[in-house]
Amino acid sequence: MENTHYQKLTKTFARLSRFSHLSAIAGWDMFAMMPPNGSKARSEALAEMSVLCHQILTSQEVARALSDAEQEDLNDLERANLREMTRQYQQAALLPESLVEAKSLAGSRCEHAWRTQRPNNDWQGFAENLKQVVKYSREEAALRAAQRGGSRYDALLDIYEPDMTSARLDALFGDLKSWLPDLLARATEKQAQKTLIAPQGPFPTAQQRELGLDAMKLLGFDFDGGRLDVSAHPFCGGVPEDVRITTRYNENELFSALFGVIHETGHARYEQNLPREWLGQPVALARSTALHESQSLFFEMQLGRSEAFLTRLLPHITARFGNQPAFERDNYIAWNQRVKPGYIRVDADEVSYPAHVVLRYEIERALIEGEIEVDDIPALWDEKMQHWLGLTTKDDYRNGCMQDIHWTDGGFGYFPSYTLGAMYAAQLFHAARRALPSLERDIANGDFTALFDWLRQNIWQHGSRFTTAQLVINATGEDLNPHYFRKHLETRYL
Amino acid sequence: MENTHYQKLTKTFARLSRFSHLSAIAGWDMFAMMPPNGSKARSEALAEMSVLCHQILTSQEVARALSDAEQEDLNDLERANLREMTRQYQQAALLPESLVEAKSLAGSRCEHAWRTQRPNNDWQGFAENLKQVVKYSREEAALRAAQRGGSRYDALLDIYEPDMTSARLDALFGDLKSWLPDLLARATEKQAQKTLIAPQGPFPTAQQRELGLDAMKLLGFDFDGGRLDVSAHPFCGGVPEDVRITTRYNENELFSALFGVIHETGHARYEQNLPREWLGQPVALARSTALHESQSLFFEMQLGRSEAFLTRLLPHITARFGNQPAFERDNYIAWNQRVKPGYIRVDADEVSYPAHVVLRYEIERALIEGEIEVDDIPALWDEKMQHWLGLTTKDDYRNGCMQDIHWTDGGFGYFPSYTLGAMYAAQLFHAARRALPSLERDIANGDFTALFDWLRQNIWQHGSRFTTAQLVINATGEDLNPHYFRKHLETRYL
Repeated sequence: MENTHYQKLTKTFARLSRFSHLSAIAGWDMFAMMPPNGSKARSEALAEMSVLCHQILTSQEVARALSDAEQEDLNDLERANLREMTRQYQQAALLPESLVEAKSLAGSRCEHAWRTQRPNNDWQGFAENLKQVVKYSREEAALRAAQRGGSRYDALLDIYEPDMTSARLDALFGDLKSWLPDLLARATEKQAQKTLIAPQGPFPTAQQRELGLDAMKLLGFDFDGGRLDVSAHPFCGGVPEDVRITTRYNENELFSALFGVIHETGHARYEQNLPREWLGQPVALARSTALHESQSLFFEMQLGRSEAFLTRLLPHITARFGNQPAFERDNYIAWNQRVKPGYIRVDADEVSYPAHVVLRYEIERALIEGEIEVDDIPALWDEKMQHWLGLTTKDDYRNGCMQDIHWTDGGFGYFPSYTLGAMYAAQLFHAARRALPSLERDIANGDFTALFDWLRQNIWQHGSRFTTAQLVINATGEDLNPHYFRKHLETRYL
Repeated sequence: MENTHYQKLTKTFARLSRFSHLSAIAGWDMFAMMPPNGSKARSEALAEMSVLCHQILTSQEVARALSDAEQEDLNDLERANLREMTRQYQQAALLPESLVEAKSLAGSRCEHAWRTQRPNNDWQGFAENLKQVVKYSREEAALRAAQRGGSRYDALLDIYEPDMTSARLDALFGDLKSWLPDLLARATEKQAQKTLIAPQGPFPTAQQRELGLDAMKLLGFDFDGGRLDVSAHPFCGGVPEDVRITTRYNENELFSALFGVIHETGHARYEQNLPREWLGQPVALARSTALHESQSLFFEMQLGRSEAFLTRLLPHITARFGNQPAFERDNYIAWNQRVKPGYIRVDADEVSYPAHVVLRYEIERALIEGEIEVDDIPALWDEKMQHWLGLTTKDDYRNGCMQDIHWTDGGFGYFPSYTLGAMYAAQLFHAARRALPSLERDIANGDFTALFDWLRQNIWQHGSRFTTAQLVINATGEDLNPHYFRKHLETRYL
């Protein structure tokens, strides 16, 4: 029997998915396992693979088959898969192989050097590598924008968040800027009235790891299909069949690694519950980075830092580390709902977090549009940190613009996803609470079945079948509405 | 400037090397890190990659370029590289892609199931998978033999040990069979006269790991270019720039993991010292599996269990585990030079080890030649174990024919390398001692500089530049001569 064009495409994309499996594992290994001298060979291997996948994806045969398949008789699911295939093709086809390879190499090198440059606060060394990455990212943005129309930055944004534009972001973030500073000030002021007892370490790494595993079990992580490890910058990687999450431990600080693990567990459960029967096809991939982030923030912020969940988690903490005044219930809850502006985005509370994102958004957009240069970043960073959070990062690059890993491998356009994710998470949690009247009680009892079923049915199992807007409308009754995020923050913090 | 055919080939083989880097890391991960549910997707990804590499290696362009490059003006090194490229091409070209993929899939599945089947002593389940692997290995052997001439088994042997034949093995192993049983009996009898004190555990895994790392440091392992991890079956994997060795721990047994680590460190140092400037080219690969094994046995047996080295190692052991009667010097040395026939090959002493290899050689040769079937293995295994070592494995598959991993992924023809390696190791150590008069004293002082320089200069740095015979003649003055192995065993054990 002759294959249809669509069937041929599914075979090609399954093949691409197998190759990207190897890159995903080698990529995870690079961050979680690889010794320093493996860096050059690994970068070259990953770049070679990215060239190969680019060649396959952008071949004449794929182009023709995509166009021919449009005329074939496809069901809804197949049509959605074809839409996602076409999107991948279009994203890739306009980039020459040489640029793909050069960007991949520059990114791997920049990231690898960053690991030692950051502890050494070596901005000069880092900036030199970053300039290469920015150069290639600008080339990429120009090529993408020339095809799509719209601004260069919008063209990068579209990689992570289809249908999102800087105009829409300006509106969403503009709204945020109108009320967040005041909310932040009020929350800080309110909390200043109560003195909290800080947890007293040391909290040995081995027990912190066990506690993280406790939380992952509680949250339904499938350990037969994933792992928890350590990396400098926590992430969720691997493949849906084998999801690798990482965290980092500080023996003086208990909750940073723990809530990092809870956050990554949200990403992981999304991956672990993508539609199994379509795995390997584009339609089975997670919908977008912001939707992905909505799951991690659903776990970490909406669920994880709720009073009900914190209460449920407390016995695990005291079982691992014994009792101490900081673990007295009210103090412990208040401690984990503290609003305390700080330097580090990944450690930020959910009220000041958007400030970190808007700062990066404004800088990276200007950088890609060519309005500023890499050398301008530290001063701008310092200025915006002072403005938003009253903190200076002058000469302190490691806690300033060198804290993140996203720009090192050219991930410009990614940062807005974090705050979009926070907005989606609040909207989804609101909808879940409406649908599940016994939710608070279930959480306090450690019974998350109904909640995770709701997520599975409304988000996870759909992969990329629907557009983001359609998925969110189906799940919550309306498109993205930042009102729910504001309401959530006001309810929890004012 | 136009590329020569030879230059084009070096680019293709560099590309293949980058792809095999990803497979090597994903392969290591499969054994050392991967959770069980990742197995199917990983097998498929590795099989897809092995098909791709097979396609590239056996393409018309490579075939033509290999033939055209023969006419080009090449220096000795380039000519050696071309010889190794041609060998790789010939090895691959006669196998259809479908067989390569089917064999890779069957092997991955068999290995993965083995991990739970072995603890359950589930021979029936294992045999079912193994039959598939044998089926494809026989097909492979038939195709190879049809091209090369010679027997089917010889055709597989040639993959691992170029220029080796079963006729030569029969002579080498025949010699061994003429004196080893007597030597084994005499050594056992001699040692029976002295009662040894067994080390008293438990020896916690974490400290065993630290002791292993001590030994690796002492032996010059480069930790910036490699790691030590855990897997069910110890191995040395990864890539020369990033060598991954594994061991397994038993808290009641101290020396098994330790000497396993020392063994793998020998493999690792060979890889870490392959010629850096040629990496990515076939000429930079290790010479053969037997030569590789000669390095691990040089480290584990020739050096590692020598009185001088054991003495040097002892303070590390007592520093990690305190003192106990078993660590009294004479007892400790005798304990680590014990001859004690047992079920498990990887735990065998160097006197009974060849019996394990000859047993497997005889079974796998008959299996590939079609003289026996998978169902015949357990009875033959039991019969040969009883004959050689006086031990029965009846109904005890997990300590019998299910103990090894080699057959699970179709590595027939590999086992003889172990005993060839032991013979090469004895011959090399003899030559090194002749070249380095202060060797014993250096070892006792923990100064291995001269010894490792000798290995680097005579073996490691040459990669595959010379044939095995030429390399060994250059290093020792003669081709493989089993006399040195016999002499070594007699000196140490009689």
